[in-house]
Amino acid sequence: MNENTSSSEVLASKTYALATHFVLPNDTNTLGNLMGGQLLYWMDIAGAISAHRHCRKVVVTASVGNVSFQKPIKLGDIVTIEAKVSRSFSTSMEVVMDVFVENHQTGEKTISNQAMFTFVALGPNGKTQLVPKLKPETSEEKERYDSALRRRQLSLVIAGKMNPDEAAELKALFD
Amino acid sequence: MNENTSSSEVLASKTYALATHFVLPNDTNTLGNLMGGQLLYWMDIAGAISAHRHCRKVVVTASVGNVSFQKPIKLGDIVTIEAKVSRSFSTSMEVVMDVFVENHQTGEKTISNQAMFTFVALGPNGKTQLVPKLKPETSEEKERYDSALRRRQLSLVIAGKMNPDEAAELKALFD
Amino acid sequence: MNENTSSSEVLASKTYALATHFVLPNDTNTLGNLMGGQLLYWMDIAGAISAHRHCRKVVVTASVGNVSFQKPIKLGDIVTIEAKVSRSFSTSMEVVMDVFVENHQTGEKTISNQAMFTFVALGPNGKTQLVPKLKPETSEEKERYDSALRRRQLSLVIAGKMNPDEAAELKALFD
Amino acid sequence: MNENTSSSEVLASKTYALATHFVLPNDTNTLGNLMGGQLLYWMDIAGAISAHRHCRKVVVTASVGNVSFQKPIKLGDIVTIEAKVSRSFSTSMEVVMDVFVENHQTGEKTISNQAMFTFVALGPNGKTQLVPKLKPETSEEKERYDSALRRRQLSLVIAGKMNPDEAAELKALFD
Amino acid sequence: MNENTSSSEVLASKTYALATHFVLPNDTNTLGNLMGGQLLYWMDIAGAISAHRHCRKVVVTASVGNVSFQKPIKLGDIVTIEAKVSRSFSTSMEVVMDVFVENHQTGEKTISNQAMFTFVALGPNGKTQLVPKLKPETSEEKERYDSALRRRQLSLVIAGKMNPDEAAELKALFD
Amino acid sequence: MNENTSSSEVLASKTYALATHFVLPNDTNTLGNLMGGQLLYWMDIAGAISAHRHCRKVVVTASVGNVSFQKPIKLGDIVTIEAKVSRSFSTSMEVVMDVFVENHQTGEKTISNQAMFTFVALGPNGKTQLVPKLKPETSEEKERYDSALRRRQLSLVIAGKMNPDEAAELKALFD
Repeated sequence: MNENTSSSEVLASKTYALATHFVLPNDTNTLGNLMGGQLLYWMDIAGAISAHRHCRKVVVTASVGNVSFQKPIKLGDIVTIEAKVSRSFSTSMEVVMDVFVENHQTGEKTISNQAMFTFVALGPNGKTQLVPKLKPETSEEKERYDSALRRRQLSLVIAGKMNPDEAAELKALFD
Repeated sequence: MNENTSSSEVLASKTYALATHFVLPNDTNTLGNLMGGQLLYWMDIAGAISAHRHCRKVVVTASVGNVSFQKPIKLGDIVTIEAKVSRSFSTSMEVVMDVFVENHQTGEKTISNQAMFTFVALGPNGKTQLVPKLKPETSEEKERYDSALRRRQLSLVIAGKMNPDEAAELKALFD
Repeated sequence: MNENTSSSEVLASKTYALATHFVLPNDTNTLGNLMGGQLLYWMDIAGAISAHRHCRKVVVTASVGNVSFQKPIKLGDIVTIEAKVSRSFSTSMEVVMDVFVENHQTGEKTISNQAMFTFVALGPNGKTQLVPKLKPETSEEKERYDSALRRRQLSLVIAGKMNPDEAAELKALFD
Repeated sequence: MNENTSSSEVLASKTYALATHFVLPNDTNTLGNLMGGQLLYWMDIAGAISAHRHCRKVVVTASVGNVSFQKPIKLGDIVTIEAKVSRSFSTSMEVVMDVFVENHQTGEKTISNQAMFTFVALGPNGKTQLVPKLKPETSEEKERYDSALRRRQLSLVIAGKMNPDEAAELKALFD
Repeated sequence: MNENTSSSEVLASKTYALATHFVLPNDTNTLGNLMGGQLLYWMDIAGAISAHRHCRKVVVTASVGNVSFQKPIKLGDIVTIEAKVSRSFSTSMEVVMDVFVENHQTGEKTISNQAMFTFVALGPNGKTQLVPKLKPETSEEKERYDSALRRRQLSLVIAGKMNPDEAAELKALFD
Repeated sequence: MNENTSSSEVLASKTYALATHFVLPNDTNTLGNLMGGQLLYWMDIAGAISAHRHCRKVVVTASVGNVSFQKPIKLGDIVTIEAKVSRSFSTSMEVVMDVFVENHQTGEKTISNQAMFTFVALGPNGKTQLVPKLKPETSEEKERYDSALRRRQLSLVIAGKMNPDEAAELKALFD
């Protein structure tokens, strides 16, 4: 990690990114539904733009948290992905994304799924870079800011990089 | 869920799928590294082929577990994704994927990352279908078969669909 | 044109659509700049989503007005396209799009260019459909609503479908 | 603009470029018709090749004139785009394109639409470059050469870069 | 094969198809040269259009003859593929393609390579269909018409579908 | 050719490469069958990976031998391409590929077609490079090793680079 410090806080609302896509034939499987991998691809780009708006550095995907695909999205539907940084750590940022679907005939808009991606900031030399702290304002932003810590602990425990006993916030879930 | 039963077991080795990709310019970000979203897209297809070989039905992505991207994969590198079903539940299958990278100049091959995707089998009517049980044989297959249950409990707890107290195997991690 | 009437007005703000794209290698020419054709492709989709939000019917591109490309957009830059219906006619809608560019290193955001696309609403039989009237609210929306009429007259005069003498609002430009 | 002069004239016929495309599934909307944006993308490349053949320099899209899409082009149809420079100005070239469609079952070939794109020549330093004059020969080439001047005046008037009173050839249209 | 006969001859010149492509980043390998597979993809489509113009039926690729790639084609170069049917057999057509390259800086145009693809005509039922005879006119068309028979014999001998002794025109090559 | 020698032999089995693809909508023609050109594109990449594993240098496509497409591959089918170097010459390698298709509903797997591609190894300067000799082990590998010589002679005779009288192994086919 380099010495470059980023002291000022960034408002969560400043990291908002919105992507909008039409589901085209090649995005679909043999049932005419959007393939999960295509949605992951779109999420990765939307999340990277959000993380970039937080730190104004080149960002790369570090990890993908639990993503679930509840209902099929059909050919011709409009998919919108709303991304916002939920919390930053020293050199990384968790981005929470909400995916909405508009039926192309009725216009009905429903939430489709939610996902958390983590991005790391890199410098021109490919080394990780410090990123600013995030300042949540709305109650949803604050709730996501808090839960981001539990998700990070869970991810470290699963990767064997943190002792479960040290993951205080996470452990509370099971008590 | 429909009444269609699949009583016979499938050997884990029968669900093996291997995908091989060259990293082309459009797969890379401004650092010349493979974008995370592109790798997720490739994983989704490799995993779906593995799940399909397990159940011989149309499969769709149900969820993506924790995926982490450790080291950059460069333009021109060869990426191989090895996918195998780790465990099946009534209508779903968890697929574990190992990603390897061969440097295009030295030929050196290293493991890059690992991921778990879950797929659901669907019938022609779009309804979920029962899938056969998986029979693990090697010690790695057995280890992944056991841990798949903990991952499923974790996913259900996080989604609020299971009480943490009932997730016996998972809870043991924190005791 | 069919008999299906759409009497209620739609607020211009309800037709807002936002698309966000990273400029990837394959989107660029040999100078590393975004190709004009790729931006036109993205605009067409963003505009169609905006027009669809106005009429909730299938829409197809009817014409593209004057688009100019002032400054080069570079590989890795973030392009945002803001689209809003400026005025609707019996079966068509003009969408005005503003294109902004964020430099991927500095984060500086500047307007890049502006374009007008016209879309037509179609029914399941492929016939044109009536669309609701647009209600502009802000001063910008009202200004674009007024100028849309002049652009339409110009387009009809150029296509030889309107006598220049009848294009009152357009003619005023030259008096 | 740099000092590099290009004194010799280029025959219009030398700038001819022809592109041929099959309409594939991903080029179509939910009605199975070619999307306008895809055709604009193809036109941009065909036009750039024509402009390049005129000046033998790197060219970039400067503007797109009025393009209208009259009838739907279907999946599987063959689209041919014929591009030719209609007139050159100091550092720019207007390219006129005629789009034809062959039905993939009957082979019937009809004109689909027409468009004008303007390209600018750039040097290695990214600065605009002088381009040769165009010499029209056929009556169609001459007619397009003359009307190109009116289109340029119209474009400058609309952009607020020319006083309508100075646009003599254009103004004549309204007298 | 169905009973549908096609008695009239088609002039070779009527089967001419021309495709023009810019070499974009994603078409190139790590040396910045056009990948062979991308050129084969473009050839397949250009050849199919030529064969379609001969028979006005749906055509599918039956085989690819010897194709060699002599010199590298670079990023940004313009590739033109000229395709013409060289000879038709009962339900198939051989298309000969010449590939030319224009350097994007100097405009110098050179022949790059040549290839023969064979296409088969299919009816709506997926059965092969009779195609018209080809009538060569120029000396080059006649030469290619004659050599097409030898190539067909060679292909049949290699596939074990013709006894070398029966391949009279081919055998003459070795006498 | 440069002086860099590669004396050690490489086992044929070490050059094995396997690619797996789902047939997506954009890979198909208007009959819903995989386009020949798309399969050629996939073969080219699979073959290049195999050749690369033989020589560990950058490889480019030198030629494509006779490829035939026997039966249609449908949308949604799984295509696997197995590639292995059959023989190496001083600076080139012939790769033989077997293509298999799994029906996406029944899981039935059949051989679809076979092809030979030749690749050349290049150094950083773009000059051809010597490659190691291949050591075949199985009877199939030995048969393909032998027949590769005949195919090379045939290719040289057709290209006019070898006198048919010198092509001893090939000539034997016609005696």
